[in-house]
Amino acid sequence: MKSSQFVIIGLGRFGSSLARELTKLGYEVLGVDKDEEAVQEMSQVLTHAVVAECTDEEVLRSLGVRNFDCGVVAIGDDIQASILTTILLKDLGVKQVVAKAMTELHGRVLEKIGVDRVVYPERDMGIRVAHQLVSPNLLDYIELSKDYTIAELAVPKCLNGISLKELNPRARFGCSIVAINKAKGVIIAPEATDVLAEKDVMVVIGTNQQIEHFEESVIR
Amino acid sequence: MKSSQFVIIGLGRFGSSLARELTKLGYEVLGVDKDEEAVQEMSQVLTHAVVAECTDEEVLRSLGVRNFDCGVVAIGDDIQASILTTILLKDLGVKQVVAKAMTELHGRVLEKIGVDRVVYPERDMGIRVAHQLVSPNLLDYIELSKDYTIAELAVPKCLNGISLKELNPRARFGCSIVAINKAKGVIIAPEATDVLAEKDVMVVIGTNQQIEHFEESVIR
Amino acid sequence: MKSSQFVIIGLGRFGSSLARELTKLGYEVLGVDKDEEAVQEMSQVLTHAVVAECTDEEVLRSLGVRNFDCGVVAIGDDIQASILTTILLKDLGVKQVVAKAMTELHGRVLEKIGVDRVVYPERDMGIRVAHQLVSPNLLDYIELSKDYTIAELAVPKCLNGISLKELNPRARFGCSIVAINKAKGVIIAPEATDVLAEKDVMVVIGTNQQIEHFEESVIR
Amino acid sequence: MKSSQFVIIGLGRFGSSLARELTKLGYEVLGVDKDEEAVQEMSQVLTHAVVAECTDEEVLRSLGVRNFDCGVVAIGDDIQASILTTILLKDLGVKQVVAKAMTELHGRVLEKIGVDRVVYPERDMGIRVAHQLVSPNLLDYIELSKDYTIAELAVPKCLNGISLKELNPRARFGCSIVAINKAKGVIIAPEATDVLAEKDVMVVIGTNQQIEHFEESVIR
Amino acid sequence: MKSSQFVIIGLGRFGSSLARELTKLGYEVLGVDKDEEAVQEMSQVLTHAVVAECTDEEVLRSLGVRNFDCGVVAIGDDIQASILTTILLKDLGVKQVVAKAMTELHGRVLEKIGVDRVVYPERDMGIRVAHQLVSPNLLDYIELSKDYTIAELAVPKCLNGISLKELNPRARFGCSIVAINKAKGVIIAPEATDVLAEKDVMVVIGTNQQIEHFEESVIR
Amino acid sequence: MKSSQFVIIGLGRFGSSLARELTKLGYEVLGVDKDEEAVQEMSQVLTHAVVAECTDEEVLRSLGVRNFDCGVVAIGDDIQASILTTILLKDLGVKQVVAKAMTELHGRVLEKIGVDRVVYPERDMGIRVAHQLVSPNLLDYIELSKDYTIAELAVPKCLNGISLKELNPRARFGCSIVAINKAKGVIIAPEATDVLAEKDVMVVIGTNQQIEHFEESVIR
Amino acid sequence: MKSSQFVIIGLGRFGSSLARELTKLGYEVLGVDKDEEAVQEMSQVLTHAVVAECTDEEVLRSLGVRNFDCGVVAIGDDIQASILTTILLKDLGVKQVVAKAMTELHGRVLEKIGVDRVVYPERDMGIRVAHQLVSPNLLDYIELSKDYTIAELAVPKCLNGISLKELNPRARFGCSIVAINKAKGVIIAPEATDVLAEKDVMVVIGTNQQIEHFEESVIR
Amino acid sequence: MKSSQFVIIGLGRFGSSLARELTKLGYEVLGVDKDEEAVQEMSQVLTHAVVAECTDEEVLRSLGVRNFDCGVVAIGDDIQASILTTILLKDLGVKQVVAKAMTELHGRVLEKIGVDRVVYPERDMGIRVAHQLVSPNLLDYIELSKDYTIAELAVPKCLNGISLKELNPRARFGCSIVAINKAKGVIIAPEATDVLAEKDVMVVIGTNQQIEHFEESVIR
Repeated sequence: MKSSQFVIIGLGRFGSSLARELTKLGYEVLGVDKDEEAVQEMSQVLTHAVVAECTDEEVLRSLGVRNFDCGVVAIGDDIQASILTTILLKDLGVKQVVAKAMTELHGRVLEKIGVDRVVYPERDMGIRVAHQLVSPNLLDYIELSKDYTIAELAVPKCLNGISLKELNPRARFGCSIVAINKAKGVIIAPEATDVLAEKDVMVVIGTNQQIEHFEESVIR
Repeated sequence: MKSSQFVIIGLGRFGSSLARELTKLGYEVLGVDKDEEAVQEMSQVLTHAVVAECTDEEVLRSLGVRNFDCGVVAIGDDIQASILTTILLKDLGVKQVVAKAMTELHGRVLEKIGVDRVVYPERDMGIRVAHQLVSPNLLDYIELSKDYTIAELAVPKCLNGISLKELNPRARFGCSIVAINKAKGVIIAPEATDVLAEKDVMVVIGTNQQIEHFEESVIR
Repeated sequence: MKSSQFVIIGLGRFGSSLARELTKLGYEVLGVDKDEEAVQEMSQVLTHAVVAECTDEEVLRSLGVRNFDCGVVAIGDDIQASILTTILLKDLGVKQVVAKAMTELHGRVLEKIGVDRVVYPERDMGIRVAHQLVSPNLLDYIELSKDYTIAELAVPKCLNGISLKELNPRARFGCSIVAINKAKGVIIAPEATDVLAEKDVMVVIGTNQQIEHFEESVIR
Repeated sequence: MKSSQFVIIGLGRFGSSLARELTKLGYEVLGVDKDEEAVQEMSQVLTHAVVAECTDEEVLRSLGVRNFDCGVVAIGDDIQASILTTILLKDLGVKQVVAKAMTELHGRVLEKIGVDRVVYPERDMGIRVAHQLVSPNLLDYIELSKDYTIAELAVPKCLNGISLKELNPRARFGCSIVAINKAKGVIIAPEATDVLAEKDVMVVIGTNQQIEHFEESVIR
Repeated sequence: MKSSQFVIIGLGRFGSSLARELTKLGYEVLGVDKDEEAVQEMSQVLTHAVVAECTDEEVLRSLGVRNFDCGVVAIGDDIQASILTTILLKDLGVKQVVAKAMTELHGRVLEKIGVDRVVYPERDMGIRVAHQLVSPNLLDYIELSKDYTIAELAVPKCLNGISLKELNPRARFGCSIVAINKAKGVIIAPEATDVLAEKDVMVVIGTNQQIEHFEESVIR
Repeated sequence: MKSSQFVIIGLGRFGSSLARELTKLGYEVLGVDKDEEAVQEMSQVLTHAVVAECTDEEVLRSLGVRNFDCGVVAIGDDIQASILTTILLKDLGVKQVVAKAMTELHGRVLEKIGVDRVVYPERDMGIRVAHQLVSPNLLDYIELSKDYTIAELAVPKCLNGISLKELNPRARFGCSIVAINKAKGVIIAPEATDVLAEKDVMVVIGTNQQIEHFEESVIR
Repeated sequence: MKSSQFVIIGLGRFGSSLARELTKLGYEVLGVDKDEEAVQEMSQVLTHAVVAECTDEEVLRSLGVRNFDCGVVAIGDDIQASILTTILLKDLGVKQVVAKAMTELHGRVLEKIGVDRVVYPERDMGIRVAHQLVSPNLLDYIELSKDYTIAELAVPKCLNGISLKELNPRARFGCSIVAINKAKGVIIAPEATDVLAEKDVMVVIGTNQQIEHFEESVIR
Repeated sequence: MKSSQFVIIGLGRFGSSLARELTKLGYEVLGVDKDEEAVQEMSQVLTHAVVAECTDEEVLRSLGVRNFDCGVVAIGDDIQASILTTILLKDLGVKQVVAKAMTELHGRVLEKIGVDRVVYPERDMGIRVAHQLVSPNLLDYIELSKDYTIAELAVPKCLNGISLKELNPRARFGCSIVAINKAKGVIIAPEATDVLAEKDVMVVIGTNQQIEHFEESVIR
C-alpha cells in the first residue's frame, strides 16, 4: 500500500473507474455513494466502500475524511450535492480536493469555493475522440502547446519495410519520430536505419500542421 | 470545409463536446438529439442541428444519414436507444459507426451488432485522472505499451536552472527527455546544454518504472 | 421428467403460458422474473421459480443457467433488459436461446447478437385471428407455402348428411378433404361414402384460392 | 374491397398486426387508438385510422361503429377500458364483437357482458411456442381433437432420399403423411414412390403419441 | 347478533358509513379494503376487518365470502377493481351482491354481469340535496310516485299556534298532514284540534304541486 | 326560470347530480370546476358552466358569485380547496353557503368558518343503503325522530288480496298505513275496506320497533 | 426549566428555529413533525421530539397536547394540514394557539377557526429586509407607530470623532439619539459630550421623515 | 422614483413581500421568477415582472441585470438555482448581491462565492417569534448587543394611571423608558410626571436581565 489515501465521493461511471485505477496503482481508496447498489458493486474492488449521504457534515466527519490526502467529488448529475460536498471537504480540511464539473458554470462555482482542481471528463473525452475520428491512424496524443503535438500513430500498410532514412520525416515534413513501438519492444530515439513494419506504432513530434501534412502525405 | 462529414446522435456533455471539436477542426457536423433545448444550444455552433427521435428508421432515412462518412452514437443514459440507433445506422449503410458505451455489457452488445468502435468516455477519463492524481506533475501521458509511457511533466521548482547534462536522466533513470516546452517555444530533441526552467514542461519517454523512479527522485 | 431443461426469463402472459405448457408436456422448467408477485403465482406450477434481476451476469451465473438446454427470453416491455439478458445467456453458453421481440427492429438486434430464434407472439396471433375473423368456419390453419394451406373448417348446417362423393371437392374446387373429426373419432383419409354431419370438423388441403372458393360456395 | 368491414380498437402489437392482415386480405378496416403515435404509424396502412377515446359512447357513435360488421377490442393493458368499450360496442349494435382478454378473470367478464368471442393471444402463443420448442422439427400444427394432431414437420437430413415406402409411417407408427411441400410445389396425398428431400416439409396426421413416436424414431 | 351476515368490500366514505350502520343495526359485518389505514380505522367498529386484495379469487375464497348473505362492492374510484370483484362474488355464490357504480356506464356493466342491485350514492344524494335547497323547510321526503310525495316539513314561525282546523290544508291545497312530530312525541293522524308550534315537524302527503303550493302559501 | 340562483363549485358525481336536478326543478345554475372535461360535459345541461380556479378571490369576484342566492361547495377530494373556496364565498357575501364535507374534522372546520349547512353525501347514503339492505321490502324511509319512522314498503306476494281490516296493523303492531300507492293512483288515508295487491307500495308510520315487528311478521 | 411549555408542530426552517430559541430561553419544548429526518435532527436540541401525523385527533390526544400552555402550528407548505391541526389543538383545549400562515387567505381561515395569533414569517421578513436594503446603515428597527420609528444605525466613517453636541440631531433633524453601543459598553441616554466612533452603533428615535433626513444628510 | 434599482429573483412569499415593500418605499423593482403564475400576480405591483430562467447567463444578460444597483436572490427551495444565479449576478457585475439561504451550509457556499449579504428569513423570524411568545407584552425588540436590548412593551392594565415617578424603573430595575407611544402621539424621552395608560406602548432600554426583571415584577 502506498502512503497517499484517496476518498472518492460518487461511484458512477467516472468515479468508479477512477477508484478502480487508483486501487490498481496501489493506493488506499475509500469509495462513498448514497446508492447502495453502486457501493456494493465496488466493495470487492476498493479498500473500503460505504453508503452515505455526503451533503451531511456529520456523516463526512464520522467517515474521517479529513485524514485523507485527496478527496475527489465525482458526483454524477446533482450539481447541488456536488457543491455542498465540495465545500464540506474543504472546510473539514482535506488537503487536496478535486471535483468533476457538469457545466462551465458549475465549474466556476467549484473554483470560487476553493476546489484545487476541476475536471470535465465528458468534455475532455469529446475533444480527444474528435481528434481520433478525423485521423484514423491516431491512437493517442499529447497537446504540448497551442502549436505542438506528440502523436501516437499506427504505421499503415504503405509504410511497411520503409526505413526512417527513406521516409525522412524531418526533412520532408519538419516533424521527428522519437520512438517506435514494435512487437519486440520500444525503440527510443530510433536511427535512420530502423525500418517500419505494418503493425508498428510510431511517436511523432512536431507542429500540428507538420503532423497533419505528414499524415496526409504518407499515411492515408 | 473538409470533405468528411459527421453525424453525432446525442448532444449531451460528451456528444456536444465532440461535435464542437469536430466543427473547430473544420468538418461538417450534423447534430441530432430528441431534446429541443440541447439542440437549440448547439445550433449556433454546428453546421446543422435537428430535433429528432433516432430510434425511428424513417426519421434517420429522412435525415439522409447514409450519406455521412461517420456516425457517432453519443446517447447518454438510454442503453435501448443507443442500441437501436446503432443498428439502424449500420443497416442504413453509414460507413463508420462509433458508439459510446455506458457499461461493459452495453459495449459487448454494441460490438455484436457490428459497431466499428466503442468508446467509454467516463471509464477512460477515470483512468486518466487517476494517473494525474498520483503524480501531481503529470500533465498528460500516452501509454505506448504495457511497459512504456510518454509522460508530459511540469518542471518543478527544484529543477530550475538545471541543465540536461546535470540532470542526466538516461544515465541515472534510463528514461529520455525528448522535448521541452518553454515559454518561447518547443525544443525537440533537446541537447545536454539545454537548461530547464520552473514553468517549462518536459516530455519524458521510458518504462513506467523508470519514469516513476525519475519523478520520485528529482521531482517530488 | 423428460431430459431437456428450460429456463424461462420473464413470466408475463406469454412467458407464463409457455412455462405452464412446457411443464404440462413433462419438462423441467425454471421460471425467473424480477417481479415477486409474478414468481409467486407460478411457483406452484413450475419446477422452480425465482425472483432475480436477469441483466446481471453474476445473478444468471449463480442460477446455473448455462446448464439449461434452452433459454427463453420472454421479457414483456423492456427492450433493453431483453437484449442484455439475451447476450448474457449466449455468452454463458446456453445451447439454444429463443427471444420474444416487441418490434421488428428489436428482432433485428436479437438476431445480430446471435439468438437462435426470434418469436413475435402478438404479431403472429394478430395474423392468425385475422384469418379466423374473415372465414367464420375456419378453426385453425397451417400455411404450407405462399400458396398452399391446410384449413380446419367447421362443417356447416347446410352440409349435414352430404357424402364426400356428393360434395366432390377435388373435382369442383381442386382441394381435398384429408381428415374428418367426428364426435366418435377422427377419420383419416376419408372415403367417398363418408358422410358429413353438422358438428363435424373437416381438414381441407389446397391452394388458398381453392379453399376460399370452396368456403364461399358450399359453406357460407 | 370485400364487403365486410372491421373496426379495430387498440392498435398495439396485436391490434396493429390484426389490422394489417385484414387490410392485406382485402377488407376495409377502421383503426382506433387514443395514442396519436400508434394511429399515425398505421394511417398509411389502413383505410382509416383515427385518434379517439373509445370509452365515451358519443365518440363511438360519431365514428359510426354500429355500421361495422365486426368490432375487435384489442386494447392492450387497460382492463377497464377494454370492458367499457366492449359493452358500448354491444349496446351500439355491432353485429360481432371480439375482444382480447388479458387474464382469465377479464375473459369471464367479457363473456358475461355478451362478447361473441374472447381471444388470449399471449396465452395461445405461449402454448404454440412450447410445442415448437420441444419438437425442433415442428413448424406448425393443428390440434384436431384432444388426441389427434396435424403436424407440419421439417424433413431432417437423415431422411434425405428416403421414399415413403421405405419410411412406411402408417405401418410403423400409425400416422399418415398427407402432403409434402417440396421446392417445386406441394404434393397432396403423396404416393409410396414419392421421395423425401432434406429441405422438404411434410404434413403428418395421427394421434399425439403416434406423431411423437414418429418424431423420436426417425427424425431426432 | 342478527342472523344475516354482510361482507363490505371497500371501506371509503360510503363503504365505512354503510358498514358502521349495519353494525349498529345489529348485524355481523366483515369489512375488507386493500388500504391498511382504512381497515385499521374500522377494526374497532366492525366484527372483522381485514386488509386484502379483492380482485384475487383465492383471497376472496380464503375469506370465506360465499358464506355471507350479502356482499357489497363499495370500491371507491377503481372501476376495474369494482367489476372484477363483483364477478368474483357472483361466481363464488354470494346470494345477494350490491355494487356502487361511479358512472352510468359502469352501472350498465355491473348489471350485465349479474349484480342484484346497483347504487349511485353521489348521484342520489345530489338529487336529495337539490330538493332540500329549493324548499328550505323540507327536511326529508319520499317520492311515492312520479306525482305523489311525502314531505317532512319544519313548521315555520308564522304557523305557531295555528290549529289544523284553521290551517285546513286538505280543503285549501289538497294535501294532508299525516303526522306531527312535537317535542313531547309524535302524533299520528292528528286531529283538527291539534295545534302546530314553531319547532314542530309535520309530515305532509300530496301531489308535488299541492305540496309546493302549500309551502309557498303558508310557509315561506 | 324560478327566481333563486345557484352556483355549484365542483362538478364531480355529487355536484353534477345536484346541478342537474336543480336545473330540472327550474332554477338557474352556474356550474364551476377547474377540470375542463367536467365542465364540458355539463355545459349542455346547465345555464352556465365555466372552467375556473375557485380558490382565487379575483376569479370568484369576476364570476359575480355574490349575486347568487346560494353557493354549494361540492369539491370532491381536496379539503384545502373546499375550505378556501367556502371562506371566499362567505366573505364575498353569498347569502347561503352549503358545503360537502369529506370527514367529520373537515365538517368541523366548515362550521367554524361559518358555512350555513354541511352535507356528508357518502356517509348519509351509506346509512340509507344499510337500512334498505336489512329490510328488503323497504324502498325508502324518513326518520321522524329517534323512535318514529315513516317507511315506504313494497307489498309482498303473501299480502296480495288482503284488506286493511284483515291486516289490522294498528291493533296488531301499533303502526298505521297512511297511504297506498297502487298502479291506478295513490290512496291517501286508506280505509279498512281497501285491499292490498302484490305490486302496491304502502306507507307505514310507527315506532322503529313496531315497523320492524310488522315487517318480520307479515312480510318476510 | 421555566414553567411554560410549548408544543411546536412542524419542524421546518421556521419551526425548528423557533423551537431552538425557546429551548435556549429555558423553556420545555415538544417538537412534532411527520418527517422522521426533521425530528431526528432536532432530537438532540429539544426536550422531546416525536414523529407523528398531527391531523389525527387520537395522535394529538396521545401526545398530551392539551397540557401544553402554547401550541405553535409551524407547518410548512400544507395548508390543509395546518388548518386541521389548528382546529384540533383548539378543540383539545390548548390555551394559546399560534399558527403560521402561508397566504393572506390561509390567515383568514386560521382566524375564523379561532387561532390566537397568526404569523407570516416570510412576509414580515421581506418587509424588514427591504428597509435594510434601502438604508445600508440600518441594522434593525422598531416601528413604533405609522410615523415613529426607533432605528439602530451603524456610525459611518464620516461621523468618527464627532460629539453629539456637534452633530446636534434634535436641533437639526428633530430626532434624538437615545443610546450608543460602543465597544466598551452601551451608553444609555448619552450626553452632549459623548463622542461617536466609526464602529459604534447609535439608536435614533424620531419620525420616519426625520430619520430619513438624518441618514441622508449625515450618513450617506 | 428613487434612484436605486433592485432586481429580485424569486417571487415566492419572501421575495414578493420584499419586492412589494421596496416598491412601496419608492424604488424601481424588477421581479423575476420562472413560474408564470407568480410573475403574473406581481405584475400589477412591480415596475417590471418577467418570467425567466435565471440560471442561464444569456437570459440574465438580456434582462440587463448588471445595470441594477442591487440584486436579491430570493429563490425558495432550489439550492442549486440559488447558487448558480448568485454567481452569475456577481460575474455580471451587479454591485450588491444579497441572497436568501435555506440552510447554514447553503449560506457558507453563498459567502464563498462572494455574496455581499446572506439572509435567513425563516431562522430569524423563528427567533423573533420565540421572544414574543415567552413575553406576551413584547411587541418588538432590537438586540443592541449580547447583553443590551431595546424592547417595545404593551402597557398592561395594572400600570394604568401610574406615573413614571411611581414606576421608577431606573432605580428599581436599572432600565430606562425612552419613549411612550400614546393614542395622541409619541412622547420621546418622557418625564417623571408622564402617566402610563392601558393601551400605551413603552420603549424600554436595558440589559436583558433588567428588562426581564422589570417585566416579571410589574407587568405579568
